[in-house]
Formats: sequence, C-alpha cells, structure tokens
Amino acid sequence: MSLDIDGSEVDVVIAALHPNLTTFLEEWRPILSRYHLIILKDPDMKEELQIPSGFDHQVYTKVDMEKVAGQTSINFSGHSSRYFGYLISCKKYIISIDDDCLPARDDQGFLVDAVAQHVTNLSTPATPFFFNTLYDPYRKGADFVRGYPFSLRNGVECVMSCGLWLNIADYDAPTQAVKPDERNLRYVDAVLTVPVRSMMPVSGINVAFRRDIVGPAFFPALRLAGEGKCRWETMEDIWCGMCAKLVCDHLGLGVKSGLPYVWRGHGVDGGDALESLKKEWEGVKLMEHVVPFFQSVRLPRTAVTAEDCVIKIAGMVREQLGPLDLVFKHAADAMEAWVKLWKAAAPQSQINS
Amino acid sequence: MSLDIDGSEVDVVIAALHPNLTTFLEEWRPILSRYHLIILKDPDMKEELQIPSGFDHQVYTKVDMEKVAGQTSINFSGHSSRYFGYLISCKKYIISIDDDCLPARDDQGFLVDAVAQHVTNLSTPATPFFFNTLYDPYRKGADFVRGYPFSLRNGVECVMSCGLWLNIADYDAPTQAVKPDERNLRYVDAVLTVPVRSMMPVSGINVAFRRDIVGPAFFPALRLAGEGKCRWETMEDIWCGMCAKLVCDHLGLGVKSGLPYVWRGHGVDGGDALESLKKEWEGVKLMEHVVPFFQSVRLPRTAVTAEDCVIKIAGMVREQLGPLDLVFKHAADAMEAWVKLWKAAAPQSQINS
Repeated sequence: MSLDIDGSEVDVVIAALHPNLTTFLEEWRPILSRYHLIILKDPDMKEELQIPSGFDHQVYTKVDMEKVAGQTSINFSGHSSRYFGYLISCKKYIISIDDDCLPARDDQGFLVDAVAQHVTNLSTPATPFFFNTLYDPYRKGADFVRGYPFSLRNGVECVMSCGLWLNIADYDAPTQAVKPDERNLRYVDAVLTVPVRSMMPVSGINVAFRRDIVGPAFFPALRLAGEGKCRWETMEDIWCGMCAKLVCDHLGLGVKSGLPYVWRGHGVDGGDALESLKKEWEGVKLMEHVVPFFQSVRLPRTAVTAEDCVIKIAGMVREQLGPLDLVFKHAADAMEAWVKLWKAAAPQSQINS
Repeated sequence: MSLDIDGSEVDVVIAALHPNLTTFLEEWRPILSRYHLIILKDPDMKEELQIPSGFDHQVYTKVDMEKVAGQTSINFSGHSSRYFGYLISCKKYIISIDDDCLPARDDQGFLVDAVAQHVTNLSTPATPFFFNTLYDPYRKGADFVRGYPFSLRNGVECVMSCGLWLNIADYDAPTQAVKPDERNLRYVDAVLTVPVRSMMPVSGINVAFRRDIVGPAFFPALRLAGEGKCRWETMEDIWCGMCAKLVCDHLGLGVKSGLPYVWRGHGVDGGDALESLKKEWEGVKLMEHVVPFFQSVRLPRTAVTAEDCVIKIAGMVREQLGPLDLVFKHAADAMEAWVKLWKAAAPQSQINS
C-alpha cells in the first residue's frame, strides 16, 4: 500500500452521535493525527463534545447547518450530519467513518491504516467493464488473469471505495435479531471492483469517495419516518449508495469494495434490534420498490456531471416512485435541494480552505 | 463446509497432458480417492499413462474419442480432451482440475478439499441480481448486508464454480513474460457471485459445474491456429466461459468465483512464455473482437435450455464474428456439432452409469 499520501488532499469526516469521542480518537490517533478532521455534532445532541487534544479538526454544529441549509428540505440529524461535512469540505478525498468503529487489525495482527487503504483504492483504477477473478489487478503481487482483454486493462477512474467491518457486521434489524451473537471474524484480504450495472447496498459506516468528481451524489435524501440513531434504523446511506452507483455507472466511473476493514463495536447506544424492527420494516419494504426502479432506470446522454445525474434521478424518482410512498417524493425534493446547496457551497468552500 | 457430499453425484475429470500421474494423484489421494475419476489421455500423447492403484477411475483415449466424435469438427487434443469427459459423464457435478495442480493449503495450513468446496459452492444459491458486500451470504458466519432486498435473498441456482490458484497464477503469456518470478501468495478467503451481465474470463484449470443443467455449454470450440499444451497457449476455456456465462445470465442461473484454491506448479512441460508469445498474441487479438460481441449479444426468450442457448449463440457467432476471423466460424461449427453430440450421448451415458 502506498504511504505517499498527500494529507492536504484528504478530509476525514466523523459524524459524532456520541458526545465523548475520547476513546474513538485515541484509538485512531496513529492513523488520523496526520489528517484534517471534520467533526459534525449531531444537531439533536445536547451534551458538549469531548475531543482529545492533538488533532487538526473543526467542529460543525446545528448552528452551522442551519446557516447553510436552514430553508431547505435537507435534514442533517443523526447519521445524516456527515453529509454537512461532505458539503463544506473542499478536499479531493473524503473518508467517512462511524464513531462506533475502531481501527481493525489485519490477518497478521497489524493495525489497518483505513485512510491509506481508501486513498489507495481511489487513486488506482477500477475495472467495472470486465470481472478480474484475481481481484484488484493493480495491487502488488496481482495482475489481470489470462483472457482479460488488453483494451480494458487501463481501467477507469475509481471514485468510491466501500470498506467493511470486523466484529459487528452491518446487518439490518431482522438479521441482527435472528443472529444476535454472530460476529464477522473473517478477514478477507481483497479489494474488487463492483461491476457496472450491478446494484449494491453501500454502507455509510466506512466509506470514501472522490469529492471533486462524485461529491454531489452523496446526499441525505431518504429519511424513514421512524428513523433512529442506530445504523439499522436508517436507510439514508443505502439510498444514496444506489443513486451514487447509478451515477458512477452512467459516467463510466468505478466503485471498489473490500478493504479496509474497521472494527465495529456496540456503541453505548447500540440499540435493541427487536425494538428497532418496528422502524426498520419500513425500510425493508421500501427496498422492494427501489430495486425495480434501479434495475430499469437509464440516464440520458445529456447528463455529463454528477450534478446533472442527481437532478435527472430526482425527477424520475418523483415521477415513478413518488406515487408509491411519500418518502420518495421527499427524497426527490432533498436531492434537488442538495445540488443547489452544493453549487452554492462551492465558492464558499474555496474561501474556507 | 458441508462434508455430506454424495460421491455418486460427482465425476472428477482430469485431462492427462503428462503420462505420469503418480505425483499428482498421490498428492490428491486424501481428497480424490472418494470419487470416480474420468481420466482423458491427450490424443497426441504416445506414452503409456501411469496411474497409481486405489482410485476408482476410467481412462478414455483417442480411440474412444474418435468412436464418439470422429466425423465431427470437434477436436479433443491437449486441454480440450477434458470436454470428452464432460460428454461421457452422467453425473450431476463435474469437477475439473489440471494435472499440473496439487491440493492447496488454506491460510491456517489445512489441506483444501477442492471437491467439497466446489460442491458447496454449487449446492448453495448464487446472488447475481444484487451485490452482497459481505461475499457469499450462505457461508457460515456470513449473511446479507443491511439494504439487501429481502425479495432477492433466496438467490438462484448456482451452476458454475470457478476456483483460483496459489503459486503460479493463470496469467497470459505476455504477463508471464513480464513477471516471470511473480507468485500468487495471497489466500483470499472468499467466495462471491459474479453479477449478472458481468463478463469474465473463466479458467479451465480449476472449475466445476452442474452438468445436468449447463453441461452443453461446456465445449471445445475456439482453437488457436498455433495452440500449444501450456494454458497460456490456449483460449478454449476463455471462449467457453464467455458463452457459459452468457447462458447462465440468460437462464437466470448463477456463477461463483473464489474458493477453492489449488496449488499450481510448473509442469515438466511448463513452457517458455517468451516463446509462447508468438502463439498467444493471436488469442489476445481475438479477445478484442469478442468483447463487443458479448457486450451487445442478447438471447431470445425462446431459448430456454442450455442447448437452445448454445445453438443461438453459435448462429450469432457465425454471422457477426465469422467474417472477422475464420477461427470464429470454426467455433460456431464446433458448438453446433457439440449440441448434437451431447444429445446423442445422453442415453449412452445412462447405460454407462
């Protein structure tokens, strides 16, 4: 893995859903102390944030969010606060990690530098147009397998990197309720490109992307009526990921999945999966509308930027999914509002930087 | 991994390109002695085969191949001899392993039972219509990730299982020439479904499939003018794999890739990659015609069996690729001849069983 990462190109975004970030940041210190941290205080949180010294960071609160997005349909509460960080950043790479995750160790016991791995994923090409059975061909010790067309070996720009989780996997509430004691202990030492037109559930727990290319496609749009503070009570990242993958596919850009792992513990508000089932069921049902939509949707050739694509998707969501559930109409509104905010924030980001 | 494998449902097919199978079979004895082996003697080989005792096996030679396929355009020489084994088998599962491969050890040093892993892959569902970031959700300790649609969690029948290689990876001659000392040492402990409509280079070195469902899609059709006895001098499995994946996609069947690994050594006829480049270059160029064809080809709804699909593909290959290179016209002829042979062989297999 390359260690020549230019820290000035990276913002690490942390949505603080817990007031005391001491354990979290102390564990991450060897990795995160090199980078600028954008810390978002959940607007619903009353307590003061506790942040240990020695980190180059900036905290944004409800006041900042209201100043920028007050009159819009955008809601930054809970996990969605991280999107405010994406908006006000002006860096090339965004790395986003949930505050209930600690650094993982690889299968040889070494601490995983999740930031370096994400940046490596994003700065080497992706290969969405032909599957390489030997995983990431750009990794040291790997290459393209026999029969892989030479004309496709340059790959395409990789703009999204989806990391995984050891210990508590990112299951939904029903699965968590059925298998409360299951732990993900298998360290799969691989990165692979998710093929074009393959739909996928992107998780917001441990994810990175090229803000300069697909930033506008990372938005808080789908909010469940009974949304909670546990990951399994949210769908915001799943919806955003479906849209972002569609944007990447349309623009000929790549998405990778696999490394880096983070170690995911139960947060203090880890939650009760059985209790959450009441809320989550709404999200589970929504997905059954979402799948046929994304299976069939095609963007017009005139959409040549992420902003264009998001506006087009919003229009089709309103038209095709809006009549099925109000949550989709709200999502379409929020996506359009997001693109406006993004365009307005662009010069401001430059000033802040 | 399930150990309750019914050995009577499995044929292990071994194309003998080397006369002395003693080392190969002794190393595989703990795994292969439970199964019936179909051993194909390369019709170009003059020497007597050496097979250690204690294996339930049947050897087929040039005489058998000529009796069954003598008047057709099918050529069973070299690696293609294995296809004769697929034809005369009457089992549910075919496992095919090159005779220069030995059993691998997993990342904890345990011997990998490649047959059991292939049968496990084939007897649990595949999930081609939505990508699961946690790899094979049916594996012990794994499941579907949050956001995976419940309506797709039953998966589909898995009919092809593509294993990998430790030590010498399956590179083409140019890559092998550029990186002669590279070894694949990374044991990636994962199985995943290759998504629908994702093209892939299937290797014949370590592969398994459901003969009863997609057997007719495994044929020796594309033969390079200067085809040799090293894997990198052949394209027969790459072409067959592209067709088989298309058949699976059309019929809504699944393909998995990943485990099991085999340990791949240099055979005594390991070959000289630089010398092979002269031959291989033909195959590399052919792939550039093949990719746009498979990107655009769609089978009609009337094709509802593997046989139907192969006949339809053969017709389109003759029409669209035939004018570009004679090798494609020959491939189309061989595919049609194969389906005829397959239909004719079916009752005979029943008698042999």
